Amino acid sequence: MLPEEPPEEPEHWKEIIKDFNDAIMPGITHWHSPQFHAFYPTGNSYASIVGNILSDGLAVVGFSWMASPACTELEVITMNWLGKLLGLPEEFLNCSSGPGGGVIQGSASEATLVGLLVAKDKTIRMHQKDNPDLDGDMFKPKLVAYTSDQCNSSVEKAGLLGSMKMRLLKADSDGRLRGDTLAKAMEEDRAQGLIPCYVVANLGTTGTCAFDPLDELGPVCSEANVWLHVDAAYAGAAFMCPEYRHLMKDIEYADSIVVNAHKWMPVNFDCSAMWVKNGYDIMRAFDVQRIYLDDMKNNMKIPDYRHWQMPLGRRFRSLKLWTVMRIYGAEGLRKHIRTQISLALHFAKLVRADDRFLVEPEPCMGLVCFRLKDGDMITKQLLDNLTKKKKVFMVAGSFRTRYVIRFVICSRLTTENDVNYSWSKIKEEADIIYADKVHTKPQIPAINQILSREICEKSK
Amino acid sequence: MLPEEPPEEPEHWKEIIKDFNDAIMPGITHWHSPQFHAFYPTGNSYASIVGNILSDGLAVVGFSWMASPACTELEVITMNWLGKLLGLPEEFLNCSSGPGGGVIQGSASEATLVGLLVAKDKTIRMHQKDNPDLDGDMFKPKLVAYTSDQCNSSVEKAGLLGSMKMRLLKADSDGRLRGDTLAKAMEEDRAQGLIPCYVVANLGTTGTCAFDPLDELGPVCSEANVWLHVDAAYAGAAFMCPEYRHLMKDIEYADSIVVNAHKWMPVNFDCSAMWVKNGYDIMRAFDVQRIYLDDMKNNMKIPDYRHWQMPLGRRFRSLKLWTVMRIYGAEGLRKHIRTQISLALHFAKLVRADDRFLVEPEPCMGLVCFRLKDGDMITKQLLDNLTKKKKVFMVAGSFRTRYVIRFVICSRLTTENDVNYSWSKIKEEADIIYADKVHTKPQIPAINQILSREICEKSK
Repeated sequence: MLPEEPPEEPEHWKEIIKDFNDAIMPGITHWHSPQFHAFYPTGNSYASIVGNILSDGLAVVGFSWMASPACTELEVITMNWLGKLLGLPEEFLNCSSGPGGGVIQGSASEATLVGLLVAKDKTIRMHQKDNPDLDGDMFKPKLVAYTSDQCNSSVEKAGLLGSMKMRLLKADSDGRLRGDTLAKAMEEDRAQGLIPCYVVANLGTTGTCAFDPLDELGPVCSEANVWLHVDAAYAGAAFMCPEYRHLMKDIEYADSIVVNAHKWMPVNFDCSAMWVKNGYDIMRAFDVQRIYLDDMKNNMKIPDYRHWQMPLGRRFRSLKLWTVMRIYGAEGLRKHIRTQISLALHFAKLVRADDRFLVEPEPCMGLVCFRLKDGDMITKQLLDNLTKKKKVFMVAGSFRTRYVIRFVICSRLTTENDVNYSWSKIKEEADIIYADKVHTKPQIPAINQILSREICEKSK
Repeated sequence: MLPEEPPEEPEHWKEIIKDFNDAIMPGITHWHSPQFHAFYPTGNSYASIVGNILSDGLAVVGFSWMASPACTELEVITMNWLGKLLGLPEEFLNCSSGPGGGVIQGSASEATLVGLLVAKDKTIRMHQKDNPDLDGDMFKPKLVAYTSDQCNSSVEKAGLLGSMKMRLLKADSDGRLRGDTLAKAMEEDRAQGLIPCYVVANLGTTGTCAFDPLDELGPVCSEANVWLHVDAAYAGAAFMCPEYRHLMKDIEYADSIVVNAHKWMPVNFDCSAMWVKNGYDIMRAFDVQRIYLDDMKNNMKIPDYRHWQMPLGRRFRSLKLWTVMRIYGAEGLRKHIRTQISLALHFAKLVRADDRFLVEPEPCMGLVCFRLKDGDMITKQLLDNLTKKKKVFMVAGSFRTRYVIRFVICSRLTTENDVNYSWSKIKEEADIIYADKVHTKPQIPAINQILSREICEKSK
């Protein structure tokens, strides 16, 4: 629908907006439709868009304090604000007396990789201190990272990108990585001469929103002197509401935490909020000097953020976090989270009232996983049919080797009526499938077993 | 100036805009002031801002084709447009019959690191093919990357982040990495059992905008079967003008190229345009599957861009590239580049007319390096004084171990009058320094020698 060659002469906005409507809009998957229930949400609000317009208008690159002092300073302030709002321990904040602080990364993927690279650097330095002749290069292949088999793909990818073996340990039947599983894995590796280096705990897994118990994993990491990174990309936003903070009990054990403000808060991508307990660890790992970057100061209270991230360049991203936190206020943000959770519970109630369906596991945050009792094959058929009809968008997950459909409250515009509508479409489709099936009942158990195995293989 | 605690209740835009003006604006380093001549430019235009507003309004996450088809498809189209505009060989484009294609990365830092990680993966697979028992982990520490000592800090950092030894080879007296230097370094390493893996050639170094000769480096890489990445972050935009394409002669040897559309084109950060000759190389290195990411297709013509980058998430960044290319047209973009180059030449003329100053090396693109003939110390003093007065902003560089001041035409709003004004400020400051010096002439040569050594150490 668009030409293959770039335009030689300037064009008018009218033509561009016409093409936007005719050629772009029909190809959009509408993440902010009230019937979008796939993946996890991505943030969007007028407050955030205006913040971004201000940022784009200024168009400064804030790699160092001097390159635009306000860009660094507002990031320090808003990251402290957000940390306080989430109830993070003070040691993670830049306003504490220690070397902790927050930084905005582009994505949780980036934050997890940053954590891994810093853990690698720190572990090598630690061992070289005890053994000055140690060859860092020969030592690196011995380092091991751990997470659960329920982790987001980006965690596994961090291992791939950071050249560190990433063991995906078996979660328990509730999707949680347990302390004894981690301790045992570390012990096995140590017995083989390997060195535990990095652990990623998941607070709100992508598949079923399970929470790893930090009160079990924390002490194991602490005793082994291993970097504990907490991936709370989606669910972390709920810690704004005190009633959910028990889910991050013992967060004090963490060395770094990531919460995507651009996921469940109404902040546009990209705004991945990361806190570390010791900023010097990052700076030591990432500092590369140049004469043209030489400026007049460098201290922890006003960080040069280029040493806190992988790239050199960075936008003024804290502006949108600032406008959102001020326009909504803490109470507005909490209300957003609570509304979305109550909508998810409303959906679960609807599903449970239909005895062909099963909700499993217990709904958590804005996520409800459900399936047809008659098995994986028919559940998959239900999802495939709904996807083809494009009225409701959901994706698959797996729970205890069973194929489930993930239903997430994503849009901040979703109302109870919208949830009722989505459910009516799901129910309608189930009715059609069951009507078709009357004459051809399949051998469900056998097929299920084959499919379950397939799912397990794929999700590894 | 801003409160330490986040606001509990919603606030009004009026208050936010007031704080924006009172607390943020005074702390801004104005990258788009016509007197901003530091670093290299960063893009900014109304066309780009509107593109971003459209992107923020849609707020889709385009990690796979299905997650928003138009987001992937417009990126393919605009990257083909830009590739054609720059005169890149067809094999780098997605519209060729081969597996080449473009992708928008967040920064050149990211692109360079992506190149390095893919080169590592490819080299290991290549060697494992010949030797199936080869232990990839033990093999990795033997891999070596090469670039010139004039590379951007992000290139050195890519080695650090990607755990690969990055040798900064000595550039010639014009700041160019020569073919024989590279060949010799590879030979030395091979003699020690190491394996050359990745080369970053710089087309337009950050220090002095020097161009590495691809016609020398290309054949060396090709013969050694080593991945050649071309960092043309700033100067690459000039290839839109045919009269500068000789500077990328033999680009056919490259495996990947990066040009920051957000640097010298009026596109807002972040929009780092990267092309690769073989997209399968990236996909093989970066593919991590999950059931919830499972969708219906995967082919090279419509890539799932999550396999082309480090993070999972990605914004709809091609919209701003699209609006800029259409609002300016190719002729508007070429005019922008040519105007900026002519302004740089105008500045060089002004400097040369003052016999206290020296322009060195020859001006290139929008960059003019200059110094006082009386030495490094006095040149540094000139820059320090100007920086303190905050009327003109420039940063230091070094050329042939001498301290130079880098003057870059950055803002797209800069006119000849603005350049005259900047020069008048520089001249004024030089007058003041020389007036002060009349009675206290320093021992210039000795001090210079000390300082030069310091600069050399620092810039390593």
